Amino acid sequence: MSNPILVEVLRGNHVESVHSGAIAVADARGKLLLALGDVERSIYPRSAVKALQALPLIESGAADLYGLDAEGLALACASHSGEPRHIATVTRMLAGAGLDASALRCGAHWPLHQPSAQALARSGGTAGAIHNNCSGKHAGFLCVACAIGADREHYVDPNHAVQRMVRAAIEQLTGAPLTSDDCAVDGCSAPTWALPLVSLARGFARFATGMGLTPDRARAAARLREACAAHPWHVAGTGRFCTAIMERFGTRYFIKTGAEGVYCAALPEHGLGVALKCDDGAGRAGEVMMAATLLRLSRSISEQEQLEPFTQVMLRNRNGIAVGEVRPTQLLSVW
Amino acid sequence: MSNPILVEVLRGNHVESVHSGAIAVADARGKLLLALGDVERSIYPRSAVKALQALPLIESGAADLYGLDAEGLALACASHSGEPRHIATVTRMLAGAGLDASALRCGAHWPLHQPSAQALARSGGTAGAIHNNCSGKHAGFLCVACAIGADREHYVDPNHAVQRMVRAAIEQLTGAPLTSDDCAVDGCSAPTWALPLVSLARGFARFATGMGLTPDRARAAARLREACAAHPWHVAGTGRFCTAIMERFGTRYFIKTGAEGVYCAALPEHGLGVALKCDDGAGRAGEVMMAATLLRLSRSISEQEQLEPFTQVMLRNRNGIAVGEVRPTQLLSVW
Repeated sequence: MSNPILVEVLRGNHVESVHSGAIAVADARGKLLLALGDVERSIYPRSAVKALQALPLIESGAADLYGLDAEGLALACASHSGEPRHIATVTRMLAGAGLDASALRCGAHWPLHQPSAQALARSGGTAGAIHNNCSGKHAGFLCVACAIGADREHYVDPNHAVQRMVRAAIEQLTGAPLTSDDCAVDGCSAPTWALPLVSLARGFARFATGMGLTPDRARAAARLREACAAHPWHVAGTGRFCTAIMERFGTRYFIKTGAEGVYCAALPEHGLGVALKCDDGAGRAGEVMMAATLLRLSRSISEQEQLEPFTQVMLRNRNGIAVGEVRPTQLLSVW
Repeated sequence: MSNPILVEVLRGNHVESVHSGAIAVADARGKLLLALGDVERSIYPRSAVKALQALPLIESGAADLYGLDAEGLALACASHSGEPRHIATVTRMLAGAGLDASALRCGAHWPLHQPSAQALARSGGTAGAIHNNCSGKHAGFLCVACAIGADREHYVDPNHAVQRMVRAAIEQLTGAPLTSDDCAVDGCSAPTWALPLVSLARGFARFATGMGLTPDRARAAARLREACAAHPWHVAGTGRFCTAIMERFGTRYFIKTGAEGVYCAALPEHGLGVALKCDDGAGRAGEVMMAATLLRLSRSISEQEQLEPFTQVMLRNRNGIAVGEVRPTQLLSVW
């Protein structure tokens, strides 16, 4: 029933906390190349599938109609930190479709990037929907709604034309049927459909390679991957794991986090997709699981040297003193 | 090796995340009354033992020498949210000993209470050591250092006279020998010693009852418990779990959280102590584990009615929509 412990958190001489989870690495036909834990169990992909949710933005013609540049496409795939340049890009995306932030239905929260949140407060501002880490995805949804002439009020309803397009894209890529029983409400109010981890990995292998996709869809996927590789800061932000990995590896590793410890990756050169979830939802463990998986798949010493620091993360306290570390357990490190 | 899954997080129709852990309920002689998971395993108690760390503050005479009131004593036991009244009380504690915030060695962080952090930024302020959730404990350490004429610079060193007093108090209450091998550095740079969960529960049973303690130590423990019961807001803050429970139950339930999913409780009427840890360090699970344990030990319908809302916590998203809940698994709920 339980997944294996894959990550441990050390303090002093003792393991203080542990994280279990499951990891699936699959090819575009759904063949499992590597697996740890129960990869058949369904999980909610949350924000880890934003790049799949952004396919209709290109396929509908909305991206071209409203003149979205690569930064805008990267933001449509992003869980951004709400830094001023993220906000400026979302504002530009919305303006392209003749909209402003009042059209967003994602709900408000303060910028994830603390200095930006503090600067916002200092300037007398307050949290708005545009600061929500999902505002780029929602701006993308709104562009699609405008382009296809659909209602703009209820674009997060699972039965809305935009969400039906999103669902069809995820179903086609992952090969998993998405039923209303498997549909839940995400933090930003968009639908999130539970599906098996192995299907999610397969979806990202197809996203990585275009295999099994129509030429139009394969081109749309490539365009999104290239936008994220060119603008990794737009996909997350300052000091964030997704940004750091994509800054180092460009188009070779597309990676994306989701809430509750989910990570997905698309590896075009390997022809593989990765999907993983930390059972307890901890992002710190999901990052180490993803770094260790990429290390396992890496093909050169220099790649390994770049990845290793992300598999063993030093913990520092409020005075900057090294107090422990987050690292893979033996099961994951000798995988 | 693994502890049982005690808490689950639902979203829509699926369990999205799970949390395992261990819970020990013991009396003052160390007899286990209830146990789930491996209660012999050592854990770092972190901030959950602040009330034990505060015993020397009273026993040394420092609290009376510097005129600490009940609010100050509660803050010495606190992981406070950094709200303005917390800061005012810590400032008063330090001033009593002729000190100010520059004496604190806990390191700086922004107030945990988001509106207070935003107000601080808005007023042009920045994070200081006084906003650290441990600043009350550190003010207490400093009062002891001044009262006994010890060095005030290195009061967080495990070999400093203050920390030797703290360690001796924890050893005597818990019955666990604390060796340098078991000593790690806490988030605020004070030492934290790993000890078995069952010993920690025993320590809090003694703290609750005074059994096995000298009359002076038993009086000091009672004075700290009464201060926290009278000022539960000072022990945590607005909207916090420890505050909410102690506001409802006064002297009957003393409870205190620690980092990485630790909770301790002292139940004088039951003559029991509780110690628990969520394996992965999640506070949301530690709270449900503590609420379920108190529910298991409760003796009246009205008490149960007050506790039940804390065992099943609704999750709402950024738009206030109910998206799921955090609740005990069957193992914990039928315990």
